[in-house]
Amino acid sequence: MPVPEPIGPIDASVIPRFAGPATFALLPRAQEVPRADVLVVGVPFDSGVSYRPGARFGPAHVRAASRLLRPYNPAAQVAPFAGLQVADAGDVAVNPFDIEQGIKQIEHSARSLAADGATLLAIGGDHTVALPLLRAVAAAHGPVALLHFDAHLDTWDTYFGAPYTHGTVFRRAAEEGLLDPRRCVHVGTRGPLYDAQDLVDDAALGFQVVPATAFADGVPSVMERVLRRVGTGALYVSVDIDVLDPAFAPGTGTPEAGGLSSRELLAALRALAGRRIVGADIVEVAPAYDHAEITGIAAAHVGYELLSVLALAARA
Amino acid sequence: MPVPEPIGPIDASVIPRFAGPATFALLPRAQEVPRADVLVVGVPFDSGVSYRPGARFGPAHVRAASRLLRPYNPAAQVAPFAGLQVADAGDVAVNPFDIEQGIKQIEHSARSLAADGATLLAIGGDHTVALPLLRAVAAAHGPVALLHFDAHLDTWDTYFGAPYTHGTVFRRAAEEGLLDPRRCVHVGTRGPLYDAQDLVDDAALGFQVVPATAFADGVPSVMERVLRRVGTGALYVSVDIDVLDPAFAPGTGTPEAGGLSSRELLAALRALAGRRIVGADIVEVAPAYDHAEITGIAAAHVGYELLSVLALAARA
Amino acid sequence: MPVPEPIGPIDASVIPRFAGPATFALLPRAQEVPRADVLVVGVPFDSGVSYRPGARFGPAHVRAASRLLRPYNPAAQVAPFAGLQVADAGDVAVNPFDIEQGIKQIEHSARSLAADGATLLAIGGDHTVALPLLRAVAAAHGPVALLHFDAHLDTWDTYFGAPYTHGTVFRRAAEEGLLDPRRCVHVGTRGPLYDAQDLVDDAALGFQVVPATAFADGVPSVMERVLRRVGTGALYVSVDIDVLDPAFAPGTGTPEAGGLSSRELLAALRALAGRRIVGADIVEVAPAYDHAEITGIAAAHVGYELLSVLALAARA
Amino acid sequence: MPVPEPIGPIDASVIPRFAGPATFALLPRAQEVPRADVLVVGVPFDSGVSYRPGARFGPAHVRAASRLLRPYNPAAQVAPFAGLQVADAGDVAVNPFDIEQGIKQIEHSARSLAADGATLLAIGGDHTVALPLLRAVAAAHGPVALLHFDAHLDTWDTYFGAPYTHGTVFRRAAEEGLLDPRRCVHVGTRGPLYDAQDLVDDAALGFQVVPATAFADGVPSVMERVLRRVGTGALYVSVDIDVLDPAFAPGTGTPEAGGLSSRELLAALRALAGRRIVGADIVEVAPAYDHAEITGIAAAHVGYELLSVLALAARA
Amino acid sequence: MPVPEPIGPIDASVIPRFAGPATFALLPRAQEVPRADVLVVGVPFDSGVSYRPGARFGPAHVRAASRLLRPYNPAAQVAPFAGLQVADAGDVAVNPFDIEQGIKQIEHSARSLAADGATLLAIGGDHTVALPLLRAVAAAHGPVALLHFDAHLDTWDTYFGAPYTHGTVFRRAAEEGLLDPRRCVHVGTRGPLYDAQDLVDDAALGFQVVPATAFADGVPSVMERVLRRVGTGALYVSVDIDVLDPAFAPGTGTPEAGGLSSRELLAALRALAGRRIVGADIVEVAPAYDHAEITGIAAAHVGYELLSVLALAARA
Amino acid sequence: MPVPEPIGPIDASVIPRFAGPATFALLPRAQEVPRADVLVVGVPFDSGVSYRPGARFGPAHVRAASRLLRPYNPAAQVAPFAGLQVADAGDVAVNPFDIEQGIKQIEHSARSLAADGATLLAIGGDHTVALPLLRAVAAAHGPVALLHFDAHLDTWDTYFGAPYTHGTVFRRAAEEGLLDPRRCVHVGTRGPLYDAQDLVDDAALGFQVVPATAFADGVPSVMERVLRRVGTGALYVSVDIDVLDPAFAPGTGTPEAGGLSSRELLAALRALAGRRIVGADIVEVAPAYDHAEITGIAAAHVGYELLSVLALAARA
Repeated sequence: MPVPEPIGPIDASVIPRFAGPATFALLPRAQEVPRADVLVVGVPFDSGVSYRPGARFGPAHVRAASRLLRPYNPAAQVAPFAGLQVADAGDVAVNPFDIEQGIKQIEHSARSLAADGATLLAIGGDHTVALPLLRAVAAAHGPVALLHFDAHLDTWDTYFGAPYTHGTVFRRAAEEGLLDPRRCVHVGTRGPLYDAQDLVDDAALGFQVVPATAFADGVPSVMERVLRRVGTGALYVSVDIDVLDPAFAPGTGTPEAGGLSSRELLAALRALAGRRIVGADIVEVAPAYDHAEITGIAAAHVGYELLSVLALAARA
Repeated sequence: MPVPEPIGPIDASVIPRFAGPATFALLPRAQEVPRADVLVVGVPFDSGVSYRPGARFGPAHVRAASRLLRPYNPAAQVAPFAGLQVADAGDVAVNPFDIEQGIKQIEHSARSLAADGATLLAIGGDHTVALPLLRAVAAAHGPVALLHFDAHLDTWDTYFGAPYTHGTVFRRAAEEGLLDPRRCVHVGTRGPLYDAQDLVDDAALGFQVVPATAFADGVPSVMERVLRRVGTGALYVSVDIDVLDPAFAPGTGTPEAGGLSSRELLAALRALAGRRIVGADIVEVAPAYDHAEITGIAAAHVGYELLSVLALAARA
Repeated sequence: MPVPEPIGPIDASVIPRFAGPATFALLPRAQEVPRADVLVVGVPFDSGVSYRPGARFGPAHVRAASRLLRPYNPAAQVAPFAGLQVADAGDVAVNPFDIEQGIKQIEHSARSLAADGATLLAIGGDHTVALPLLRAVAAAHGPVALLHFDAHLDTWDTYFGAPYTHGTVFRRAAEEGLLDPRRCVHVGTRGPLYDAQDLVDDAALGFQVVPATAFADGVPSVMERVLRRVGTGALYVSVDIDVLDPAFAPGTGTPEAGGLSSRELLAALRALAGRRIVGADIVEVAPAYDHAEITGIAAAHVGYELLSVLALAARA
Repeated sequence: MPVPEPIGPIDASVIPRFAGPATFALLPRAQEVPRADVLVVGVPFDSGVSYRPGARFGPAHVRAASRLLRPYNPAAQVAPFAGLQVADAGDVAVNPFDIEQGIKQIEHSARSLAADGATLLAIGGDHTVALPLLRAVAAAHGPVALLHFDAHLDTWDTYFGAPYTHGTVFRRAAEEGLLDPRRCVHVGTRGPLYDAQDLVDDAALGFQVVPATAFADGVPSVMERVLRRVGTGALYVSVDIDVLDPAFAPGTGTPEAGGLSSRELLAALRALAGRRIVGADIVEVAPAYDHAEITGIAAAHVGYELLSVLALAARA
Repeated sequence: MPVPEPIGPIDASVIPRFAGPATFALLPRAQEVPRADVLVVGVPFDSGVSYRPGARFGPAHVRAASRLLRPYNPAAQVAPFAGLQVADAGDVAVNPFDIEQGIKQIEHSARSLAADGATLLAIGGDHTVALPLLRAVAAAHGPVALLHFDAHLDTWDTYFGAPYTHGTVFRRAAEEGLLDPRRCVHVGTRGPLYDAQDLVDDAALGFQVVPATAFADGVPSVMERVLRRVGTGALYVSVDIDVLDPAFAPGTGTPEAGGLSSRELLAALRALAGRRIVGADIVEVAPAYDHAEITGIAAAHVGYELLSVLALAARA
Repeated sequence: MPVPEPIGPIDASVIPRFAGPATFALLPRAQEVPRADVLVVGVPFDSGVSYRPGARFGPAHVRAASRLLRPYNPAAQVAPFAGLQVADAGDVAVNPFDIEQGIKQIEHSARSLAADGATLLAIGGDHTVALPLLRAVAAAHGPVALLHFDAHLDTWDTYFGAPYTHGTVFRRAAEEGLLDPRRCVHVGTRGPLYDAQDLVDDAALGFQVVPATAFADGVPSVMERVLRRVGTGALYVSVDIDVLDPAFAPGTGTPEAGGLSSRELLAALRALAGRRIVGADIVEVAPAYDHAEITGIAAAHVGYELLSVLALAARA
């Protein structure tokens, strides 16, 4: 580890968890640490949304819901903030009125934040933000494996003629060569599509599909398939919170019945222990539709498990 | 198929899903198609309710929550609006102040809508509406098998002396000879009863019970029992949304803990592929208690799976 | 009146108000009447929003909340649907991903709907939609007076370089010559501005300001000033629902404390009796933030009072 | 006063207000006092409702919201529970499935509770319950003056052929001779009617109308008119909570914009000091639409002011 | 059974379930029965809470949500109110401003209510209340086995120097010798801890941990481990409602993603049939964060299953 | 002004208002400015609350709701962040389990923050926090005038024997000599008291009462009385958000019907122009009961008007 003693979250035995900084998991701000191994960064952009908007308020909401995250993860047996310096880089400044400019701003910020070697955990925002994040990741690592948790494929071509939206982002990424077509997989998809052809096109882009129904056989069998597919190289993990059933994540934009439970999703993420995550996002948390922060809490735990995988990898 | 090219939903690449007609799945209205194979009809009646009222607003709510339903069902591998002409027949006009007159109005409308051979998918309303719908179905098909998803038996005798309520409707149906007593089954029941005798009476009317606890063994084992019971003849499917756990369907009138997940319910419905549905209802969606449309979305997906079963049967 | 006996709303003594068509005030759809004097049209577009999005769901929400509107307005002593044929023209199809194209689509639809002489009452959508609506009105009537109820001026120049947003729309309208600079007024403004210069610029564009604080002196004194300003010629009325206090209209995008009560706003609109409204909009209803439809109900009543003013003018 | 030292509410310095019995204002139950001057009684019946149901849960909700009511009313300068024995009589048992039987049950209970001379303050339930309450009052006192706070007239003839509903109750009361036609008044009406004739019919039944708009001139001028109308004889006060604006009372069944503030309503009730109330009701609180108990709190304060008027009269 | 014919809940065929007394399951109040086998008692105390407060309103909320509990439990095949006299003892009076005094008041009340041999089922309140309840139980039964359903261990030492809080209560209980260190188990724990040492300390106090992830293997395998651990002697069951996933129990103070479903929890409780429960609590229901009573309903069903276990034991 | 060019809020034309730092009004953090004239400080403490808790989450909520505050106040004609350096000092660390220690911690922090001459604007937290804030103010300025906006007097003696609670704080302040007994006034009180003696005791402590009913005569007449009372010396302003009607501020702990509108409250605060505020607080915002941030927005505007009064004084 380059940083022998990372600066951790505030001490919750001195400052109650409902007080203190509005950072992810009460972690230090990026400017308060000499350098960071992992940066949590908000990407408050939702102009690519086709149904319920509002994910622009997602970063603030997930941070608020992350206040209960404590330092030690017993399920993964790791203290994610102890081996790595994790810090909160605040929000990317994005123009809400121009999708293409917004995408450029996000890519620019992502490259700049990662310039010093930090891995980014981004909190959206709608799924559009994954494209510029993948561009930044691919610039550093070359084409990556994509592990994509989502109710939807997000590989449609265009919406209303727009090439860059939350439903087309992974087709663009594939076309741009950001993804390794042998190592991409959608997990948790369900609900109606536009056409049977959607699946054909999706497969042609290099994706496998592990639908939500597969979880009836248990998380281990699902993850065996997934891990085989994504392999052991550089891996980008993109979690659309709508992979959860609306009961677990009401606060999202295009909810579909029949999804995962939060226990299933967290177990699936834990199964990534040992893999090399080079970037990740958690997107589509739309707080106006949330209740009692349950969607935010699920998203915060998703982030925590991803950080735990990163910490385990760093320890290895 | 009598209609070679059904008129489908509006084109969501031209009109965003949040705009356009307030019909089920953005389908055409009944008056906009020459004839229909299946009619979705709202039955906004909740005067038979014993606890939380409000299912009178159910049809409008489920329609609003159905806006995200796209044309192709990958789980069932069918495009339900392509092989069949499905249309939205609007709402039945029902007197909210007189239960018996209301029941007559519903039966009259159901018979008239089905006169031309259309199968009805009704959206309640409380469970009382199943009685007149079954009367109309039995008039055309004779006694039918009943597959009844519900937390409750709904075979009590009377409430406060009233014979026609949402908790007594299937006893009336059995007494009227609308059901085939060898082919009826309740699925998903749970929670307290008035008396152990309730189960005895229920069995005497011809019902089997597959309680919610049975789902711990997986949907396939449950549905094996169910399919054996309902057989292959004319089948009526009645889905009380409270068969779902309150986490998945808070927007209902008599919620009971310990219910199904939406993934389980949808899988159960998909297992009906190949059976001959002659009528169906989705009832007890009470929007005032819903949050972020999650109950409405679950109900809309239930409708979509039922339409898919109908479409598969038509294709066969 | 060109139509001696307009087709009115559905008969609520036959069909309960919670049932029936999802049109404004249960009125007929445009395609169900031979011609219309007034068309209520939804404009589900919110891509010009700078804070809380969601007004794209406004038209459906206001229509749902208008179900209780009955035929006779005792405060205005007029039956607005009796003297005029009012109908619901459904929603304009608008691209959510391209503001400038969206504006063009709205203008095109507005011109086409008004081609036969109908006056449009538009339900937004965010305030951006007022620009294309004004273009269509000015094309027919020349520069019009603008009576603008809003917490904000909406005459900023650009946001993030974008010229067309919900906060810049009336500067654009003034620059394009759509407004009569001697007859424009903002009513109900309050809350912080970016700069004192904002007011100077606003005045230079031809606006007077009657702030929310003026309502402490009563609606009659406010409306005396307003009516003097707008004069008796062609008048466009634009009502941003955030002119109401957040207590009365929580369901909106940029709420400011210290606003009007709904009683004040309705009284102000009634004072327009005798003026010649040539177009109107009700915008910025964001349902995800509403509760128990109270914002929607206020907006529906605003629409009803505007229709009453139109009916009184037609009767004169 | 026959009871020199009434038993008051629980001592909130010993039992926190959030604990203790679920009675109105933490008062004793009827069975815990030797006799009562005033009985607060719940009437959980809402089968007469034409739009949003749910007022059946009103009594429990208003009781919960009354926990903060303390013993001394500084605005009225009276301690309402000190001079009178006030107790909570629980809920009337009413059949929800048969309106006419329900009305009979309510009348029977009301007569029986009042048999010993107690004045009843009823908490609905929908407005239908006022008819049997008035029957019981008129049986004891002859035709009474009616002071009716409501957004609506409630003097329609029938709905769907039903003579007994929440919108027809005062026409029935007038026809049955329960009201003194020279001393009846509606206060706070607003919103659309079915027809101009509604007002003519209403006047013919003996009602004056003081619309909500009259409150722009202040409560004193309104109440001067009202007090002149109702006179000094036996007075029944019926408060439909929808007389308040939806901002103040979202939790109700047929909300209309443009209503009273709670401050206005409470001031109006205080102006009744010195009048002889012989019965009262607070109706149409529909908790499923309430938020943070604000409607319930307003209703509880309405009850408290009515009890204060009763206490002042008893002191006189 | 000492009481041959217990007084049961009110007859719901006469009084609708939404009416009648605000007692648990509409049971009689303690003062209305000659003696009780089981007393349900509210403990409205939440001053020991470290994050979201509000469990002080838990007892009233759970009682309201228990109105649908009917007399016969088909899953357990027992009528819990028939073999045992169960009654509602109301709420303990507790000082909200002094934790240590509050704990003493609860212990005093618990001892006094149980003096006559009644078993207590307490409804919290936050988890702090378990300590005085255990003191009362241990005073009568000696050290007991503890079956603790919770997302958290609640065996931290102090918070902010405070020894008595909702997160430290079972360490205190262990230190005070109230628990049998060979027979204690936490079930359903998950989420981050402060330190790996937390688990070491916890084990040293005599606890085993069965984490929420274990439920992936099914309830029977979990409960086999649990039953082996708790043995057949006197057993105290403490259910923190946050053992459920936030989807099933949003209304709680320290929610953690990845929890149990209500079906799993109820099945786990049913597996206790035959064990000897000497006391139980259901805590941490915070109604301000609940929606549509779903948390309250889950808690009410938990209580019902615990009462069923008690009734089965009494029958044996 | 010692700081010629204060650092202002972030530039909202670069960073959208929904992004960026979670500070009050997007202002800089205290550590980001060389020194501050005014510090906004959160005091997340609610252990002194007698009814609905949750104000511990108030500071974060009000900050979130303050994102829309722009730099120029047209009503007061001042740019509050231009003439003064205003910064956000974050939250005070307070022990939630020990009221007296909590009070000491707040006093200590307040003294330390104000040591350099900064005026504090505190955001609670419950009203208990006003006592240590007043201690710090009086230490610097001697006894001050108190302008107290509240539904309640907050001069009760003790609750459950506790001297320091949210309802007793101003009696303690008076007893400690922190207040100038000739210059204290409660504004907006209403609702029931424990006893008529409460008012006598309150007056003896040096308070005048201007009840909420006085606002029927208009804000100017109210404020004339108030300004005469508080005089021109050092003034502390304490705003309990429950001074607003529950319609305007549902998110609070002890709501009382009949309160102020936000327009009235803001106008009252503006009337303080020219007075010398030496400290202020905004308390009792309980977010769990808020809806769509309306309470938070009202509180944020209250803070903005107080800052404007400070800026005007600094300019003078």
